[in-house]
Amino acid sequence: MIIIMRKDAAKEEIDKVVQRVEELGFRPHLSQGEERTIIGVIGDERRLEPHLFERMEGVERTVRILRPFKLASRDFHPQDTVISLNGLRIGDRKVVVMAGPCAVESREQLLQTARAVKAAGAHILRGGAFKPRTSPYSFQGLGLRGLELLAEAKAETGLPVVTEVMSPQEVPLVARYADILQIGTRNMQNYRLLEAVGQTSKPVLLKRGLMSTIEELLMAAEYILIQGNHKVMLCERGIRTFETYTRNTLDLSAVPLLKQLTHLPVIVDPSHGTGKWELVGPMAKAAIAAGSDGLLIEVHPRPEEALSDGGQSLKPDKFAELMEELRRVAEAVGREL
Amino acid sequence: MIIIMRKDAAKEEIDKVVQRVEELGFRPHLSQGEERTIIGVIGDERRLEPHLFERMEGVERTVRILRPFKLASRDFHPQDTVISLNGLRIGDRKVVVMAGPCAVESREQLLQTARAVKAAGAHILRGGAFKPRTSPYSFQGLGLRGLELLAEAKAETGLPVVTEVMSPQEVPLVARYADILQIGTRNMQNYRLLEAVGQTSKPVLLKRGLMSTIEELLMAAEYILIQGNHKVMLCERGIRTFETYTRNTLDLSAVPLLKQLTHLPVIVDPSHGTGKWELVGPMAKAAIAAGSDGLLIEVHPRPEEALSDGGQSLKPDKFAELMEELRRVAEAVGREL
Amino acid sequence: MIIIMRKDAAKEEIDKVVQRVEELGFRPHLSQGEERTIIGVIGDERRLEPHLFERMEGVERTVRILRPFKLASRDFHPQDTVISLNGLRIGDRKVVVMAGPCAVESREQLLQTARAVKAAGAHILRGGAFKPRTSPYSFQGLGLRGLELLAEAKAETGLPVVTEVMSPQEVPLVARYADILQIGTRNMQNYRLLEAVGQTSKPVLLKRGLMSTIEELLMAAEYILIQGNHKVMLCERGIRTFETYTRNTLDLSAVPLLKQLTHLPVIVDPSHGTGKWELVGPMAKAAIAAGSDGLLIEVHPRPEEALSDGGQSLKPDKFAELMEELRRVAEAVGREL
Amino acid sequence: MIIIMRKDAAKEEIDKVVQRVEELGFRPHLSQGEERTIIGVIGDERRLEPHLFERMEGVERTVRILRPFKLASRDFHPQDTVISLNGLRIGDRKVVVMAGPCAVESREQLLQTARAVKAAGAHILRGGAFKPRTSPYSFQGLGLRGLELLAEAKAETGLPVVTEVMSPQEVPLVARYADILQIGTRNMQNYRLLEAVGQTSKPVLLKRGLMSTIEELLMAAEYILIQGNHKVMLCERGIRTFETYTRNTLDLSAVPLLKQLTHLPVIVDPSHGTGKWELVGPMAKAAIAAGSDGLLIEVHPRPEEALSDGGQSLKPDKFAELMEELRRVAEAVGREL
Repeated sequence: MIIIMRKDAAKEEIDKVVQRVEELGFRPHLSQGEERTIIGVIGDERRLEPHLFERMEGVERTVRILRPFKLASRDFHPQDTVISLNGLRIGDRKVVVMAGPCAVESREQLLQTARAVKAAGAHILRGGAFKPRTSPYSFQGLGLRGLELLAEAKAETGLPVVTEVMSPQEVPLVARYADILQIGTRNMQNYRLLEAVGQTSKPVLLKRGLMSTIEELLMAAEYILIQGNHKVMLCERGIRTFETYTRNTLDLSAVPLLKQLTHLPVIVDPSHGTGKWELVGPMAKAAIAAGSDGLLIEVHPRPEEALSDGGQSLKPDKFAELMEELRRVAEAVGREL
Repeated sequence: MIIIMRKDAAKEEIDKVVQRVEELGFRPHLSQGEERTIIGVIGDERRLEPHLFERMEGVERTVRILRPFKLASRDFHPQDTVISLNGLRIGDRKVVVMAGPCAVESREQLLQTARAVKAAGAHILRGGAFKPRTSPYSFQGLGLRGLELLAEAKAETGLPVVTEVMSPQEVPLVARYADILQIGTRNMQNYRLLEAVGQTSKPVLLKRGLMSTIEELLMAAEYILIQGNHKVMLCERGIRTFETYTRNTLDLSAVPLLKQLTHLPVIVDPSHGTGKWELVGPMAKAAIAAGSDGLLIEVHPRPEEALSDGGQSLKPDKFAELMEELRRVAEAVGREL
Repeated sequence: MIIIMRKDAAKEEIDKVVQRVEELGFRPHLSQGEERTIIGVIGDERRLEPHLFERMEGVERTVRILRPFKLASRDFHPQDTVISLNGLRIGDRKVVVMAGPCAVESREQLLQTARAVKAAGAHILRGGAFKPRTSPYSFQGLGLRGLELLAEAKAETGLPVVTEVMSPQEVPLVARYADILQIGTRNMQNYRLLEAVGQTSKPVLLKRGLMSTIEELLMAAEYILIQGNHKVMLCERGIRTFETYTRNTLDLSAVPLLKQLTHLPVIVDPSHGTGKWELVGPMAKAAIAAGSDGLLIEVHPRPEEALSDGGQSLKPDKFAELMEELRRVAEAVGREL
Repeated sequence: MIIIMRKDAAKEEIDKVVQRVEELGFRPHLSQGEERTIIGVIGDERRLEPHLFERMEGVERTVRILRPFKLASRDFHPQDTVISLNGLRIGDRKVVVMAGPCAVESREQLLQTARAVKAAGAHILRGGAFKPRTSPYSFQGLGLRGLELLAEAKAETGLPVVTEVMSPQEVPLVARYADILQIGTRNMQNYRLLEAVGQTSKPVLLKRGLMSTIEELLMAAEYILIQGNHKVMLCERGIRTFETYTRNTLDLSAVPLLKQLTHLPVIVDPSHGTGKWELVGPMAKAAIAAGSDGLLIEVHPRPEEALSDGGQSLKPDKFAELMEELRRVAEAVGREL
């Protein structure tokens, strides 16, 4: 951390800051600039809060030097994390496709979709049993019945299952049925929930909060990693901006940036990321071109009857066509599907 | 809801949409414009998802007519909700001030602050026992011990207590000690938590998510109201924007806007809203001038030693001065403090 | 346009709105919903301002039905616009690459870069002679001397030149040297400038404002088109969001969306869009995968000595490698480079 | 500026950076932290671009220490700038109110409004003759005729006039009629225009770009100040965020923050800042409570017939009532109206 003194800071004020740095167990390092004195704080600044200095007399502001994440950082773990699941290797050369309906609505709807995405080459089945919805008047998911149907679809198709968990109490239940636990965008900073999934041994798909920076996403992963669960995937799913023609703004530059900063696999959700089915294909291709390790795509046999997010779901035949196109893009960038 | 057909929509496509509107139990109403046909959907559209029509052939998009919130809406409840608490009336003529430290850190720190804010005229004591922090390496609050200290401070000063609750399981515990349950900004859309506080009889202070719209804030309130707990206060505490000189951008226009849209009391938190103690005073005055029913202000006896958010905490003497200034502004706009 | 009346609107208020619709030369169309009356306004609403009704008694709000752009819209011009330039066809099957330094700094720097990008297969040379800079203390470009150097580089390499014009007075001068006139992000809504380039016959590269919506971008294009110049390319170059790890957030979903809404070619600038040279390659590939008609890429022989934007410039050898990769992605999506 | 080296930077890489710092005429200052080496750059960093170091081997990133603005900064000019105009002192104890129609539409409309705002106690008349509009199909202002009408209104009422200028060529014309030259939000970074008004001796009202940071606003002011015109007022008029219930989000915390950072007067425009007339009054009061030196308020005798921005204009009687309320708030915070 760097402490920047005011232009007019008195010598005694500087001395007091230096003294405080030492009291807190750090080593101060003074540098007299042309306009200001700055004081370097040597030691692991992750333990320091800026206001410990900013509220002292003569201090203008502080600047952090280190990134605040540690376990998630490539500095501390240079090799890519690869998550093994039923013979799949997530985070390796192969681009992994997770597909299925937004919500599990019925036995027929789920099985029909599961068979279709399996036939088209998807690797993992997605489907929500517990659904966090903006409105309490909207469909909230089938709950336990949804989990049972996912288990049935898995038994039939052999596809592992990713599904969302919404509260710490529900973690044991969902973990009984799911191969991957999904943390939804609204819960990215639900720390009790992060702690709870961190205490399981299940892989976790952590969605970026629609209002969260990349740094906050990595700090949320840190909450899981610190509990001992290292099987964390990060998922870019669109952020909120001023643009209203799309539901969210899919931040694809997060993909290569995360690959630099962290060793964890990066997944992209072009369905929520755009909110419009016509944009899903182009953005899925773009995600692979940008270096994504996987995709999360919503597929529904009859989107016009879906109980949620029908606007962004692909029909099975469109999805099958898209898989062919994705395969070509993956190969063009040295990956496979 | 209005369904806008494409410029080139065929008659059969229009007919199918009309038919579907009827099948869903609504009444269609056709209007032939110069460039497009539009179809009104008559009935309570809160039950409708846009994609039910948007995925049909020939449809360009849909537009909602009604606001999606109902119990929180002034249309359905024209009179102001006033929440009574220990003789206080929140949402009435008096502007209510809740003050105290960001986090309870020690017996001495809390009691000293509680006495000071009481002496300066604050009405409610704030203080966090369970603290949601961006970093797992930061101080996470004293937990149960913090709640016990709040109870002690209340016993001594007579000030009712507002404190945050972070997960559904902790609601019974926190509700035993708190007079007002606070839902933090990161949990505004933690629906299990909203349901849990909705099932208590305690007043709830619901903080706006830092990237949540006013509509989403009202929908989150709806989750609580629908459970039968009508004692909900809404709290504007700054939203995330591109500006980095302040920690958040305090959206004061939300105050008069919410007073139009809803009957619930509106509170402003200028401490988190700005992140800088020097801005707290001006923005607290501005909040009252804009029509806020209350304020949430962080006070700490030694901000330079605070375990969290010291940068935005006022010292007791500054807070006492501010209370005098607030009183004058309140009177200038026909309120009292 | 739809006029939504308040829940409690009186019959006389509705009558007055209906009467006003007629007075303004439009046809009203009443629809009595369960909770509200709504009034359709039939006619070309592009001439209407919402407040003409919103300030009347009993009116709650209005909703636009039509998109406000017309000449730029695919509804009015279904076929893709293809801009021919020196045998190039921009907006056709071939992906067009414009490359060169951010700013023209010297004869040697420009010629060296021009030769390198030409050798690597770029189609157009970019380079700024007039530079809009956030700080008046930064390098502001070589001006006329820069234009002359661009002409020399064009004469030697045969590459057409795109360069920015900053004010209406400078249009004739810049148009003498440039093959494509660039409107920078800060000037997207500089209407006098849009009018001035609209009165030339030169192709225009219109950059999206860094906090402009897609609709505003199309309206800015409309300002040029309405003057009679139909050779307009739209350029996505990153928008401003809350994320700070990248300079801007490149909104790639704008590419397929614009291709739906408009007939104009769409170009992507991954250099400004990310601000980091390491991200330029992945995002350039992603742009092509998403359907972009062209790319604008900054190349500098010695970025560490550049007078502007060195952080996002590729070195010539990296650019040459990237061109190979881009070629493969282009082919994977049925295009060529 | 601080240069942060990578964790694994080699000694030779550090040496090269140190050498480069010296070559550029600055003094390097090494500090060996626990995880990284950092290098302080001593000298006036305003002349330095970060990429000069960021592109060197072994460098992770750089951090600026100094704010980039100088002439606008309170560090360099501690006393408040007070702008004298016809006996008014803008930036002093009195809060200055500028009021009038968004656009000058007709002689009758302007004179009627001018008389009304004068009678209510406004100090300056506002009114647009040249109007930048998002759509080329909207009313673009009366131009020269509008300026003449403003002159007539001034002659009759004695109110000085503030009006917008849109391009460098129009500066001499507008300066002949206006007492204050307004730079609109879309032109905040139109540098040719800033230079042109900087070369006049007229006070300038510089509106914050709706997409601009406070730092960029101060840098835009710097462009005017550096030309020798020191009579610059800064105007907060709402920024663009994700919220759609208001037209913009009025960032009132910019007021006390600007008063800290700069010596220039700060004005608030609650009309554009909210876009809704019902919110203008509360936000005008809040602006004064927050420390604003003045207000810019739109008034129109018949908002429902206005040719622009009728949705946010107050009627004369509402404005007169508001002036009374503003007076009380001004007195409560030790100012006068």
